[in-house]
Amino acid sequence: MVKLNENYKSLKQSYLFANIAKKVGAYAAEHPGAKIIRLGIGDVTQPLTPPVIQALVKASGEMGVKETFRGYAPDDQGYPFLKDAVRNYYLKFGVTLSNDEICVSDGAKSDISNFTELFDKENAVLIPDPVYPVYLDGNLMAGRKIVLAEGNEKNSFLPLPDKSAEGDIIYICSPNNPTGAAYTKDGLKQWVDFARNKGSIIFYDAAYEAFITDPALPHSIFEIDGARECAVEFCSLSKTAGFTGTRCGYTVVPETLSIGGENLLKMWLRRQTTKFNGVAYVVQRAAEAVFTEEGQKACKEVINYYLGNARIMSETLDKLGVWHTGGLNSPYVWMDCGMDSWEFFDTLLNEVNVVGTPGSGFGRCGEGYFRLTAFNTRENTIEAMERLSKLYK
Amino acid sequence: MVKLNENYKSLKQSYLFANIAKKVGAYAAEHPGAKIIRLGIGDVTQPLTPPVIQALVKASGEMGVKETFRGYAPDDQGYPFLKDAVRNYYLKFGVTLSNDEICVSDGAKSDISNFTELFDKENAVLIPDPVYPVYLDGNLMAGRKIVLAEGNEKNSFLPLPDKSAEGDIIYICSPNNPTGAAYTKDGLKQWVDFARNKGSIIFYDAAYEAFITDPALPHSIFEIDGARECAVEFCSLSKTAGFTGTRCGYTVVPETLSIGGENLLKMWLRRQTTKFNGVAYVVQRAAEAVFTEEGQKACKEVINYYLGNARIMSETLDKLGVWHTGGLNSPYVWMDCGMDSWEFFDTLLNEVNVVGTPGSGFGRCGEGYFRLTAFNTRENTIEAMERLSKLYK
Repeated sequence: MVKLNENYKSLKQSYLFANIAKKVGAYAAEHPGAKIIRLGIGDVTQPLTPPVIQALVKASGEMGVKETFRGYAPDDQGYPFLKDAVRNYYLKFGVTLSNDEICVSDGAKSDISNFTELFDKENAVLIPDPVYPVYLDGNLMAGRKIVLAEGNEKNSFLPLPDKSAEGDIIYICSPNNPTGAAYTKDGLKQWVDFARNKGSIIFYDAAYEAFITDPALPHSIFEIDGARECAVEFCSLSKTAGFTGTRCGYTVVPETLSIGGENLLKMWLRRQTTKFNGVAYVVQRAAEAVFTEEGQKACKEVINYYLGNARIMSETLDKLGVWHTGGLNSPYVWMDCGMDSWEFFDTLLNEVNVVGTPGSGFGRCGEGYFRLTAFNTRENTIEAMERLSKLYK
Repeated sequence: MVKLNENYKSLKQSYLFANIAKKVGAYAAEHPGAKIIRLGIGDVTQPLTPPVIQALVKASGEMGVKETFRGYAPDDQGYPFLKDAVRNYYLKFGVTLSNDEICVSDGAKSDISNFTELFDKENAVLIPDPVYPVYLDGNLMAGRKIVLAEGNEKNSFLPLPDKSAEGDIIYICSPNNPTGAAYTKDGLKQWVDFARNKGSIIFYDAAYEAFITDPALPHSIFEIDGARECAVEFCSLSKTAGFTGTRCGYTVVPETLSIGGENLLKMWLRRQTTKFNGVAYVVQRAAEAVFTEEGQKACKEVINYYLGNARIMSETLDKLGVWHTGGLNSPYVWMDCGMDSWEFFDTLLNEVNVVGTPGSGFGRCGEGYFRLTAFNTRENTIEAMERLSKLYK
């Protein structure tokens, strides 16, 4: 009889967003007149920009004509036109990549999990707490040992390596989801040195790099010396360019990254050509348009709109004297809510009709904290902050 | 130090298509005037049909307007509009599915490999030989034991279960790639009974079902009694509707499929929501258009064009008295080439400038056979068959 993967039994069912929906639904049913403002949205709300739409429509037309139709891509890792665009984008951070090192994907979520397949089950995985839940679940499914790196107010939710800690595979998300906190170059350098000393690999999730406005902060781990020998980087156009429903990202695997003489890029290509058939041509053309001068300008406008919302939330919390991170280089604001996360959720919903996300949903260290997101409209964000301020007075 | 997945070392590097390209390139360089006809193409060549293009362009426009923009899909397994379309399509074969049982994917290749993650490493995998190479490689990467089911002229390359054989996970591809042979209902019934007796699971690859013209042949394994208790089905629009560069498929996991009390559909949803973020909205709209009355008509025209080519190849081989399968319910023709597969490749290329695929590239049982594909133009197919006939005279 076929034997199941028993590791699935160690997964906890996440009821976070289901619970939120249930509580909000119940409140709305009891208070039909209430104007509930959702600052719990983890999805973008602004449409794709005009240069991206133009590219998508043009490419769609090409697919209907025999001479310009595209079947399987010559290379499952992405068309040269998109690799060129990503390569040039990295030059802005002073990072020089070859096209071979850029692997186009349908989003960071897939690749972050799939990349673990290159590694044995017998590796300890170091994951920050709190963090995006898929790092944990993907590794639990594979039966790997999990070690947590604690985030707290003392380290501003940016844990640094503890030399005695285990960690063969190390996850870093910067700017972080859910805390919005971003590592400095010095912080990342400590992780790179730790990884190189131990012979570990860093999985660097840069999905929110486009929200960085502070010129001193790194956008890519490859801005750090030595990272090409110990890190892979996952990036996504989901939040950068509103691609949550369009699906395109890229994974950077340095040609210089080898473990025990085995080249990781070669192993990754073997994995991908066996289990993946690339990203739709029309989507790759849309992604290419994100990186043109016009595309970057349009994207930045949308990001600035979200960042404006984040700043309003951060400034409100400053005025109220509430400890928080994020809001500056991230669409997320992570606040100390001074009570149990779910208790604060209920208070905010019931007293002022504002919805956010309980921090405890992102890990044990998130208890007592709360996440607000910048993806609602300007008007709603302002009104939500006025309501929040009333609650604190 | 991080430990690699050592199973990758057991993978053989496939030089099949690289070798073909090299040999054809060398011949073309030496004979600049030669008109080489490629019947080795495994990709579609006709463009997307007008209803599909219209849907793609319309959906692209929606993505540029705030009111109609789509971010993350409400359900990573596909929009209801596409699930409805697939569900109705299955009704034509007499198969009733619920929308929950239909999981939209970026193609059969991804899901066929990813679905194995639900199973322990300690399972024997039964794979037909010859066959699409990714079944083998995906399982070698996971370190599973492989058992081969031999295809040969005696069983018309449609192996039936050998009661003494191992097989916890059983792969069936029908109509088959590369042989073009398709199982009858009786053949599939034998596999279903075998799987149910043993407590095995069948991975049924139906990627070529749309090429079936014989009304007696099953399009879906769920046309067979008992399959809902032992099978999952992978399907793709790649060959059905020219989506090789557009990427959309669907996996059917019956709600009734449980192993040791664990529901497979629930496990699959857990896997997908952790490691996958769904298919682009614009692509799902394009896929929906494939299933409308107009879309089906347009698709069938293209498929009939390819089937016309296949029939010409099959009839030519009949006339020449060459044993072969496929060509009737498949875009592939699998011929006995009467010599070593690569020797025939060289002869065909050098003597009559026609390119095909050596059968030995699909497994040990493919040695001595050769695959021709129907994806070239009508004119080229006719000319290639005239040249082949000369070779035999």
